[in-house]
Parts: sequence; structure tokens; C-alpha cells
Amino acid sequence: MHKARLEAFSDGVIAIIITIMVLELKVPHGVALDDLLPVAPAFASYVMSFVFVGIYWNNHHHMLQAVQHVDGRVLWANVHLLFWLSLIPFATAWMGENHFAPTPVALYGVVDLCAGVAYFILARSLVRLHGSDSTIARALGADRKGRLSVVIYAVGVALSFVSVPVAMALYITVSVIWLVPDRRVERMLKAHAGS
Amino acid sequence: MHKARLEAFSDGVIAIIITIMVLELKVPHGVALDDLLPVAPAFASYVMSFVFVGIYWNNHHHMLQAVQHVDGRVLWANVHLLFWLSLIPFATAWMGENHFAPTPVALYGVVDLCAGVAYFILARSLVRLHGSDSTIARALGADRKGRLSVVIYAVGVALSFVSVPVAMALYITVSVIWLVPDRRVERMLKAHAGS
Amino acid sequence: MHKARLEAFSDGVIAIIITIMVLELKVPHGVALDDLLPVAPAFASYVMSFVFVGIYWNNHHHMLQAVQHVDGRVLWANVHLLFWLSLIPFATAWMGENHFAPTPVALYGVVDLCAGVAYFILARSLVRLHGSDSTIARALGADRKGRLSVVIYAVGVALSFVSVPVAMALYITVSVIWLVPDRRVERMLKAHAGS
Amino acid sequence: MHKARLEAFSDGVIAIIITIMVLELKVPHGVALDDLLPVAPAFASYVMSFVFVGIYWNNHHHMLQAVQHVDGRVLWANVHLLFWLSLIPFATAWMGENHFAPTPVALYGVVDLCAGVAYFILARSLVRLHGSDSTIARALGADRKGRLSVVIYAVGVALSFVSVPVAMALYITVSVIWLVPDRRVERMLKAHAGS
Repeated sequence: MHKARLEAFSDGVIAIIITIMVLELKVPHGVALDDLLPVAPAFASYVMSFVFVGIYWNNHHHMLQAVQHVDGRVLWANVHLLFWLSLIPFATAWMGENHFAPTPVALYGVVDLCAGVAYFILARSLVRLHGSDSTIARALGADRKGRLSVVIYAVGVALSFVSVPVAMALYITVSVIWLVPDRRVERMLKAHAGS
Repeated sequence: MHKARLEAFSDGVIAIIITIMVLELKVPHGVALDDLLPVAPAFASYVMSFVFVGIYWNNHHHMLQAVQHVDGRVLWANVHLLFWLSLIPFATAWMGENHFAPTPVALYGVVDLCAGVAYFILARSLVRLHGSDSTIARALGADRKGRLSVVIYAVGVALSFVSVPVAMALYITVSVIWLVPDRRVERMLKAHAGS
Repeated sequence: MHKARLEAFSDGVIAIIITIMVLELKVPHGVALDDLLPVAPAFASYVMSFVFVGIYWNNHHHMLQAVQHVDGRVLWANVHLLFWLSLIPFATAWMGENHFAPTPVALYGVVDLCAGVAYFILARSLVRLHGSDSTIARALGADRKGRLSVVIYAVGVALSFVSVPVAMALYITVSVIWLVPDRRVERMLKAHAGS
Repeated sequence: MHKARLEAFSDGVIAIIITIMVLELKVPHGVALDDLLPVAPAFASYVMSFVFVGIYWNNHHHMLQAVQHVDGRVLWANVHLLFWLSLIPFATAWMGENHFAPTPVALYGVVDLCAGVAYFILARSLVRLHGSDSTIARALGADRKGRLSVVIYAVGVALSFVSVPVAMALYITVSVIWLVPDRRVERMLKAHAGS
């Protein structure tokens, strides 16, 4: 089966997720600059989630570039990933409205964690379909990046009840790890083209 | 006529339907884990509908893979299907907010039932266009799966006034039947490619 | 310039318009069948607009099938059409919430009218780009259907202050005229393929 | 890497941005024509932003037509642009609900300004990828249009505390500059095709 519609559907869902979060930024009633202050935590939360979802889109885009086809298992692994991403707006709003209180921060981390696991599963199901000798298999390797992310998120969730700044720092660390998505896949695509 | 835009439009509408349901998850005002409890029924309702719409997308994706072109009749059969799917968020919200009361559960089943009938009609109009000898016609056969689903939904709607758990179990049964969407179509596509 | 992105963007906007209207169906608080009654006018209004927007999508799809390329003028004619369609949810909600009162019904007709004019302009700009000898030019001819629709809408708007049922009947008449979108374009595409 | 998914994702996000703004038009409770009056500023604000986002889509469409591929840097430059565009609905609503008060008008200009800078960065990153001899590089040249827009917006923001009409006039001036997006790119594409 072709991958085109999986990409199109994912693009659609991710585009909506990244955009509806802005609806949570409640328009203030006053007209002074100070009236924007109460929106600040929600805005910070929005920026963070926008980058987070943007990272997923970029990496999803890269990973799918390295594969040729999909099957039923991959479709469901993808829907599973989209499910967890769809909870980001809810987790973002709860965290933003409550000025980064411990429990909302922990929940945010749990959703991140589950999305990370879902991404890992999607990657595995693509490798399984294309074989251990495929571009995607070699690009991902043992997927230490994927495994490490899940571990850091788990630690972040646990620590959010001890120190919110530390938890947030850990979440942001994972984002930074994935910010440059292309290296592994791009290197492989080039190596492939060059051989 | 090409099928590309029908796929793109359906992907767009289904992506929005599956995503806007999350807006019904009202962000709780408290910051404790217990404050999430009131959201639990709405969340359960959301998960169920997410899977439900995901199943439709997967099956729609598979069915359209097996056809080559579309006509005006197919376009309208598809819009008709999208109409019923678009009511899923409303039915989901009513059911979730009211903790699975009988009437909302019955309405949910009615929407499922109508979507099932609409999918059946779409399948028929595709078979009609491609002829009884086509890949799609042989893949669907008498479409016992489609007919059975409609019957189970009808029974579920009737029983929702007797026992909500039984009605829910019947709805979930249909989902399980369709969870693995590819067999019929994939088999036919392979047989076709191999001949 | 290729027409692919114009189609994709229009599909996206129309998919959102057709779907967000469902957000106006406020979930009732009661759990009895009677509690759905207050939603009935909004639902009727929703069905009507869903069909209306569906008709636009189908005809847009057909018209774009008959053209090969687009230019800046066409892009803006298309954005102009999307603008009027984007007001349908607002007009639908006002009409539905007010049980089809005269002024909301008139406004609904004005939006329909403007969308009709915008569609006519888009058709003209496509003809202008492809020449009077093109498939699209011959398919549309003098576009009596487009001109007639605009006239009927204008009459409907005027009459909505006299008799709402008559105005609604006129709006629905236009929908019926366009319900089968393909004839002109499909005939031309076939004639073109056969020559 | 192919540019198709970047286009599709941008189309999705821009389609949602341009459409969800209509949700800010609160349906009036009365049924007289006068009841629409309070919606007038929000409507004016909506029209302005619809045109604004439409201009971005048109220019984005044109610019991407002139390039062949994208890399990780371009993907992020594009996500960065979409971020600022995603704030347009918020800025639009604040400005519209407060009848074009100075601070909201200034914020609107800041968002416009940042979107302008982001567009400039995206253009630069595309030129960087394709080389100074490419179609895109020659089409953009020194990108005086891009630089000028940013300057005008900055002046507009500053002046919004002195005179809102002047600020608005400046914002609209930039829109008019970009309204006809195709000249530079279309000329280059033709020259390229003709050589």
C-alpha cells in the first residue's frame, strides 16, 4: 500500500492539533498591555507545545521519507501516535491555566512519554515491514534516541512532584535532542543515493 | 474522474472530526489528580470514538486503494458518509457528559448505525461503477461484514434501554470486527498483482 | 502554475467549514429524547448547510478537473469564494438558534448569494485563462446555471421578509439545481477524450 | 527531500488558521439587523485577517513553486512562520472585540511584523539551499519587498499609540504590496522555461 494517504491524514491531524491549541489562549477583556499578563503562562505553554508538535511533524516527515510502503499494522501504529498527540492540547491547557502546577506538569510528561512510546512502536513496525537491511532499519539502528527519550520523560514525570523546573528542563532536553531530526535519515538517504 | 481529491477531502474531514472531539474534554479547574476524575467518562467516550473514527479512516483508505476512479454518485455517497461521521463528536459529547445514560447511548448507536449504512452504500456505488468483475467487487463479495455490522448496531440501539453495558459491548464488537481492515482488500490486491 | 495546491488548500478550508458547523450543535444537559428537541432547528440548519457546502465542494472538484493550470487571478478568485463559504457557519448558527426568523434567513441568503457570485467569478477567471475554445469554456457555456442561481438567491433574500418558507424553498431550489454537478463537465471530458 | 509534505502541512495549518477565526464571530442573540452591529468590528477584523492570511498562502504557494527541494533548516523556518501566523486569530479577536484600541492594534502589528520576519527567513533559507544562481535566488533578489514590509510594520506598531487609523493604513499598505504575489516568481519561471 502507498504511504501517501497516511502522510496526508497525519499532516491533517497534526496541523489541527498544532492550531487548535491557540483557541485556549483566551482573549483578555482589557485593552492594556498588562491585560496580556494573565495569558503569559498559557502562552508559554502554547509555545512549548507548538515546538513539541512541530518536532513530531518534522521527524514523522523524515521517517516516512525513508520508507516505501505501509501495511495495516503501520496504519494503526500511526493512529496510536496521533491519539497521544491529540491529547497535547488538553495537557497544554491544564498546565498553562494552572501556572505549571506539579500534577498538570506530570500529566503533560505522561502524554509526552506515551507519544514517545507510540513513535518508537511506529518506527519498529516500519522496520519490521521493510526488513533489517532496509534504509529505515539502518537509519534507526537500535534507536537509542527513541529509548533514551522515553527514559528521560519517565524521570521527568517522577521529578515533577519534587521540582517542576527540573521536570520542565528534562522535557525540554528531549525536545532539543530531536530538534535536528534529519541527521540519521538524511545520511542514510545520501549513502543510499551514492551507492 | 480521479479519486485523489475525494481521498484528500475525506482525509481532511476525518482528521478534523477525530481531532475536534478533544475540545470536549473540558480542562478541570483544580490541579490535583482527583480533579481529572470528572473528565474520566468524557475521556472514555473520546477514546472509543477516536478508535471508531480511526477504523473508518483505515477502512476507507483500504477500500479506495482497490478502486481506480469515482463519479458523481460516489462523491455524494462519500459526502453522505462524512455527514454521519461528523455527528460522532456531538453524540460522543452527549454520551460522555451524561455518564453513558441510556438515551445518549442509543443515539450514539443510531449515528454508528447510519454511518455503517452510509459506508455500505459507498461500497455499493463503487462496485456499481467498477463492475461485478472488478477488484473491489470481489474484495467485498456480498459484504456480509457490512450487513452484519448494521444488524448488530440496530440490536445495540434497541438494547441500550435495557442494559447499557450490553449495548456498549455490541458497539465495541463491531469495532473489533473492523479493526483489522485489510484482509479482504489486501488479499485481492495481492491476487491481482500475482495474476 | 499547477492546480494541485489550490485544490489541496480549498479541500482543507472546505473540510474545516463543513466540520466546525457541528460545534454549534450545543450538547443538551438532559438525557431524555425530548432534550434533543431544542437542538432540532440548529440540526435542520446544519443539515442544510452541510449539503450546501458539499455541493460547492463537488462542483469545485468538477470544475477544477476541467482545467489544467491556474494563475494569480484564479488564486484570488478562489480565496474570495472561500471567504464567503467561511461565513456559512456563522449564518447557519444565527438562523438555527433563532428558529429561522426572517432577518437571519435573509442573511443566510445573502451569504449564499455572495458565494454564488464568487463561484461565477472563479468560473470566468478560469475561462479567461484557458481561452474560449477550452474544455472549461465549452462546459460552462454562458453559465446560465450560475446566473440563474444568483437571481433566485436575490429573490429569496427579498422574499424572506414576506414568507420564510418561500425563501427557504428558493434556496433549496438552487441546491437541487446544483446537486448533480457533473453533467456539463463530465460530458465535455468524455467528448474531449473521445475526439 | 521532497517539498510535497511541507506544502501539504502548510496548506493544512493555514486552512485552519483562516477558518477558525470565524469562530470568534459570536452569533448575536437578537434577530434584527441591528443585532449584527456589535459584530461589525469583529467582522472588519476578520475580513482584514482573512485577506492577510490569504496573501501569505498565495505568496507561500508562489515561492514554493520556484524551489525543488527542502532540508531540515527549511522545515523549521516554515514551522516558525506557521507559529506566527497561528497567533493571528488571537490578535484578530483581541483587536476586533476591543474596537481597534491602540494596544491590541499594536499587538496585531507585532504579530504581522514577526510573520514578515519569519517569511524573510524562510525565503533566505530556500535561497541558501538552492544557491545564488537558482530561480528562487534570482526571483527574490535582495528581497527589498520583504525588508520594506518589516520596516513598515515596525513603524505601524510604533504609530498605533499615536494614531490607530495611520497604523491600520500602514498595515493595509503592506497587504496591498503583496496582494499581487506572482510577478517576480512568475517572470522567473517563464524566463526559465523560455531559456
